[in-house]
Amino acid sequence: MSNCSLKDYATTLSLEAKKASKELRVLDAAAKTLVLKEVAALLRQNEAAILEANKKDLEVSKENLSPSMLDRLTLNPSRIEAMAIGAESIADFNDPLNKILEKRNLKNGIEISRVSVPIGAVFFIFESRPNVTIDGACLCFKAGNSVILRGGKESINSSKCLVNLFKEALKKFGINENAVQLVEDSNHSLVTELLQQKDFIDLVIPRGGERLIRAVVEQSKIPVIKHFNGICHVYVDVSASIEKAIDIAVNGKTSRPGVCNAMECLLLHKDIPQTHVEKIVTALQEKGVEFYGDEDAINRLKNTVSVAKIEDYHTEYLALKSSIRFVTDVKEAAEHIEKYSSRHTDAIVAEDKSVQEYFTAHVDSSSVMVNVSTRFADGGEYGLGAEVGISTDKLHARGPMGVESLCTYKWVLKGEGQVRK
Amino acid sequence: MSNCSLKDYATTLSLEAKKASKELRVLDAAAKTLVLKEVAALLRQNEAAILEANKKDLEVSKENLSPSMLDRLTLNPSRIEAMAIGAESIADFNDPLNKILEKRNLKNGIEISRVSVPIGAVFFIFESRPNVTIDGACLCFKAGNSVILRGGKESINSSKCLVNLFKEALKKFGINENAVQLVEDSNHSLVTELLQQKDFIDLVIPRGGERLIRAVVEQSKIPVIKHFNGICHVYVDVSASIEKAIDIAVNGKTSRPGVCNAMECLLLHKDIPQTHVEKIVTALQEKGVEFYGDEDAINRLKNTVSVAKIEDYHTEYLALKSSIRFVTDVKEAAEHIEKYSSRHTDAIVAEDKSVQEYFTAHVDSSSVMVNVSTRFADGGEYGLGAEVGISTDKLHARGPMGVESLCTYKWVLKGEGQVRK
Repeated sequence: MSNCSLKDYATTLSLEAKKASKELRVLDAAAKTLVLKEVAALLRQNEAAILEANKKDLEVSKENLSPSMLDRLTLNPSRIEAMAIGAESIADFNDPLNKILEKRNLKNGIEISRVSVPIGAVFFIFESRPNVTIDGACLCFKAGNSVILRGGKESINSSKCLVNLFKEALKKFGINENAVQLVEDSNHSLVTELLQQKDFIDLVIPRGGERLIRAVVEQSKIPVIKHFNGICHVYVDVSASIEKAIDIAVNGKTSRPGVCNAMECLLLHKDIPQTHVEKIVTALQEKGVEFYGDEDAINRLKNTVSVAKIEDYHTEYLALKSSIRFVTDVKEAAEHIEKYSSRHTDAIVAEDKSVQEYFTAHVDSSSVMVNVSTRFADGGEYGLGAEVGISTDKLHARGPMGVESLCTYKWVLKGEGQVRK
Repeated sequence: MSNCSLKDYATTLSLEAKKASKELRVLDAAAKTLVLKEVAALLRQNEAAILEANKKDLEVSKENLSPSMLDRLTLNPSRIEAMAIGAESIADFNDPLNKILEKRNLKNGIEISRVSVPIGAVFFIFESRPNVTIDGACLCFKAGNSVILRGGKESINSSKCLVNLFKEALKKFGINENAVQLVEDSNHSLVTELLQQKDFIDLVIPRGGERLIRAVVEQSKIPVIKHFNGICHVYVDVSASIEKAIDIAVNGKTSRPGVCNAMECLLLHKDIPQTHVEKIVTALQEKGVEFYGDEDAINRLKNTVSVAKIEDYHTEYLALKSSIRFVTDVKEAAEHIEKYSSRHTDAIVAEDKSVQEYFTAHVDSSSVMVNVSTRFADGGEYGLGAEVGISTDKLHARGPMGVESLCTYKWVLKGEGQVRK
């Protein structure tokens, strides 16, 4: 596409998204439930077509992608069933709109209420996991927002097939099919053009690697809620239960090393007895974890730890690797976290209440865990239902971002002709 | 200042703001109350010095500013007393931090809570009203945020004096004086530099003219909550009470034409009897309001209405001027508002409940008024206490932005060593 037609395409997508959002704003809850159940039914009925489209994507990508990336791209009958169940569970959520968030009568007789309403048109940018296409579309739709979806180019055939099914469900109930649109051109300039459409798009949610998100923030004229990486810490205090420390560190690092709530750095109180330190470290090493540590760590753990460069503390390994560092106390642990954490999720293992309190007060991360694995940072685990992702921003939504985070509110005042003095 | 030293100055301000924000994060509520009461006392004790500084500003500006701008810049004993009362009332608010916003026990025994916490460091850009310096500083401080204040250059001497008094109060209680900083150089490049400091500043709040805000959004790498202008509408339905319509239109347009919640466009149902139309319009004209209308309006109101250009519907007059237009029904009124409103505040005057409901459902503005003057859109009137301004954004805070809007939250999970399967 030429730059000019890219711009036209971006404008068309945005205008249609805005137009659809006006219709969704007043769509009743029951209609949305029917559409989402129909999406689930269509996913099941069209399993063969979805797998066929996915096969095309896999064939194109099989030589360029790592095994873990290929795995994320791959659909199979059980993953399709999981998408259908996801759509059904979102259908069954309480409707998040038109909820009275607060209400009171003012002295002058005016009744004031704050009511939940949709945000409008959302531009959702994500990686190459086809299931995110359906999750994102269902969540935005439930919250009364239109959505422009832009997945990784590797998943384009799968995403097209899935979005077409969603549109089929919309059509069946007479709803504007542009409530869900897919960006079908993988040209990056198109994303740039879309990020300029501040008059039509209300929110951008980028989810993915650091480079992608930085580029989006750099270019966007539209408010962005970032879903950054997770550089998550586990601090083991001298007051910690050694068993809890081992469980939490091993679960945090090894249960799923490739995800954003995995532990990336282990901080140990310097007064933890050497035998305990070795137990913790050995438990992780037995699961294949390699450590990168400072001088103290190397001295205390001999040849089992490599030298850490400063960059290592800034690294989201997403692998069986971990930074390791000894600290004087919870204060120094909190300072390390302040400096190196991505403010996603950080945990303390400690029995001493005052140490726990120091940690929860001083650590400014979206989730702070006390004697709990970092791996719990997740919308489903928090009881929020499905999530768009985990916001590492501080505004509007922080941490796991469920359907309520896709809503805003307005103030409604009702009176009998009151005027202001 | 050279560009290089501007950059250094911006970095220093930002670093110090970040550092102070870490201290404020854990400052107890009682200490904040004492500081704010001390600010009130110092304002009263230093009335002469404040007036002296303000006099300098007025002397510099008296030939360049309009009477209304000069009025906004002017301090006098009663305005200083109003600032002191403002500081005291913010001191008396309930502390907005460490509030449990929700709390539950998960099946696995983990206790999860969502707790209000400060945002961090705020960069507040505003016009030349010296009292906003104190309001902004008090509100940010109460919410546990450090703040960098940047007022209009016309008010620099007044603002310096006021910020120094705030710092004196901080010093008295041993609190980092950089909790409140003033940008003392009016070079615009400095604002640009500050808007790049995304690692240290968490939020930018620009309040002022459209050009200023557009420039900030254009340049900022930091999340922005915009406080845009108010193009507010009053729609009078055919079912309206004529008395209420007159009261609301006259109050909306004439009680304070220069503010953002003033009416800028009057929409009239075409079937309102001609005598009633004339009554409404005459009531406004008697107060000095000039009308700009479409063909219909000119036909129906003869020579008392000037021709409206399309730009007029996009204009925030901030004067005794108003657009006027006849519409077929509430649907057309809502469509006009969708197109031209700045989504600040829009009102309907109607007795018909179904028409009221159509309006509140379809009009997507931060405040929607039913038989109430637009002039009520204000944090104080809503019972929120003092406000930073009125957000015309949809994310995080919408409408009047009080002290709670200056907070965010974090999730705190407490357990007994739980790990995720």
